[in-house]
Amino acid sequence: MPTVSREVRLASRPQGEPSLSNFSFATVEVREPHAGEVLVRNEFLSVDPYMRGRMNDAKSYVPPFQVGQPLEGGAVGRVIASQDEGFPVGTYVQSIYGWREAFVAPVERLQIIDTSVAPASAYLGILGVTGLTAWVGLNRIANLKTGEAIFVSGGAGGVGNAACQLAKMHGCKVIASAGSEEKVRFLREVLKVDYAFNYRDGSPVEHLRKGAPDGIDVYFDNTGGPQLEAALSALRNNGRIAMCGGIAGYNTPVPGPRNLILVVAKRLRIEGFIVSDYFKDAPAFLAEAIPALKSGKLINRETVVVGLDAAPAAFLDLLRSGAGNIGKMIVKLAD
Amino acid sequence: MPTVSREVRLASRPQGEPSLSNFSFATVEVREPHAGEVLVRNEFLSVDPYMRGRMNDAKSYVPPFQVGQPLEGGAVGRVIASQDEGFPVGTYVQSIYGWREAFVAPVERLQIIDTSVAPASAYLGILGVTGLTAWVGLNRIANLKTGEAIFVSGGAGGVGNAACQLAKMHGCKVIASAGSEEKVRFLREVLKVDYAFNYRDGSPVEHLRKGAPDGIDVYFDNTGGPQLEAALSALRNNGRIAMCGGIAGYNTPVPGPRNLILVVAKRLRIEGFIVSDYFKDAPAFLAEAIPALKSGKLINRETVVVGLDAAPAAFLDLLRSGAGNIGKMIVKLAD
Repeated sequence: MPTVSREVRLASRPQGEPSLSNFSFATVEVREPHAGEVLVRNEFLSVDPYMRGRMNDAKSYVPPFQVGQPLEGGAVGRVIASQDEGFPVGTYVQSIYGWREAFVAPVERLQIIDTSVAPASAYLGILGVTGLTAWVGLNRIANLKTGEAIFVSGGAGGVGNAACQLAKMHGCKVIASAGSEEKVRFLREVLKVDYAFNYRDGSPVEHLRKGAPDGIDVYFDNTGGPQLEAALSALRNNGRIAMCGGIAGYNTPVPGPRNLILVVAKRLRIEGFIVSDYFKDAPAFLAEAIPALKSGKLINRETVVVGLDAAPAAFLDLLRSGAGNIGKMIVKLAD
Repeated sequence: MPTVSREVRLASRPQGEPSLSNFSFATVEVREPHAGEVLVRNEFLSVDPYMRGRMNDAKSYVPPFQVGQPLEGGAVGRVIASQDEGFPVGTYVQSIYGWREAFVAPVERLQIIDTSVAPASAYLGILGVTGLTAWVGLNRIANLKTGEAIFVSGGAGGVGNAACQLAKMHGCKVIASAGSEEKVRFLREVLKVDYAFNYRDGSPVEHLRKGAPDGIDVYFDNTGGPQLEAALSALRNNGRIAMCGGIAGYNTPVPGPRNLILVVAKRLRIEGFIVSDYFKDAPAFLAEAIPALKSGKLINRETVVVGLDAAPAAFLDLLRSGAGNIGKMIVKLAD
């Protein structure tokens, strides 16, 4: 009996804020694997803000999604049929084939994950590309040093909460923002950052003044917008901005910071990065993250929605300021 | 008979665009030098855009000018009375005591300049802090490499024309902008840049598309504003912006670039710098610049106004888009 797989496709390209009508569902038959291939049944799908960019028909660092085609992205699952000795049935693998229940792929496109270390879903979160993104931003871009003060916007999100935790592990003072009281409580009470605020409650400039009266050394930017402007004001001489994303402007472009000229007087450095340029750093990252996760110094916080049907709404929620996920947003596929 | 010196003082702080009423003149008596000091009569004064920032009462990388006090800045002159063997009468020196005819200073605050290599005024221009600023931006900040394409805004100004020339010497493709047809002709016909345009004539985005169809690798930013936005669009992956100044916003702040998020997708680096952090590089710079000036590969282009009374108007002109100086703006003091 052939394997069937439901998948989520891009039905149309959104103008501005996407809606459910931009997605469609289809059921396809998945063929048997050939030599060097395996058949994988996904258990968890990754839901990521950067997918919004791929919904546009614009040249960027990853090709755009194609209308009528399934949405690519991170996923973890198990091998259910194998034509490769190294990937026996039952093996847990990580892939980038995205929002579908099952697929066939050559084994060189898959990474085996070790579920004795952490649950499979953690490889989409703190141990996955999400955690690596935070690590690269802090270590390879911002050169964060022990004792420095860092501000993380979108601090309760997938990448943001990883950045907050890794910075605390580094012995840094962490100021973090989020868009709801629940998220702010998570930052304060669970992640134990030094100062957390709701960026829609009061002025980010004032909050940074309170949280870091002597200024900040590093800004980990997940949002752009007014928080970027506030960070430019708060940065000390020779400060660095690791620019990771700009969720404030993903649906509708936001104006640039009016105080960008401070980059000159304060000798600031603003640097953007794409995590896929740094996959070679994954072993160094995991060597730090796995022991920390085991000892409880790092936690893998996730927001889980269940069932493929819930994926589009979870994604829309992720882009909606103030609502949505605490920690990494994932879709758990029903067994 | 005591030496007298006329000087230009800050009469009041400007709001927005400065006017002549913000300056006043005074005549003071200059005392005789003590041991280790010399009395200097200035021959040339430097007129620089960054002085606008010092007219505000704002904490920055240099202290603000004080109301009622003379305006500090670069100058070159000759020793006319000396209490130091190393600085005999007749020695040409460079100083930062600014817009005054004569002054007394300890010799450790002065640099001797070699007028056998170039005329004294060149030490305010291509061989001075102005030339060093361009060199630092290209070499220490942007890491400009042979064969790359660079865009220099404000390309006909003091720092800008030095940046264009040094980049051409590096074997780079140079696109430059300026605010008048005369300046554009200078860029084309004298500096022989690869593409020059008047930024007020047509869209900078279109000009960059014409001048650099494959994009640019480096942007040397003297202006900020719409040209910065255009440069962000034109930059290729891993492009760099050396942020040197933002004359477009010195009098009235300009909005930030709406496309700053491109920093992420294109992995751009934006870095600001202050030349005084790099004075240690002056010997390396001069080792390159002096032979080039002698051989005619570099030229020292200047716009000269005569007499201390002309200094404030020259400064106002410098800040006025499209008018003003080609090359370095200096004041020649009457003999």
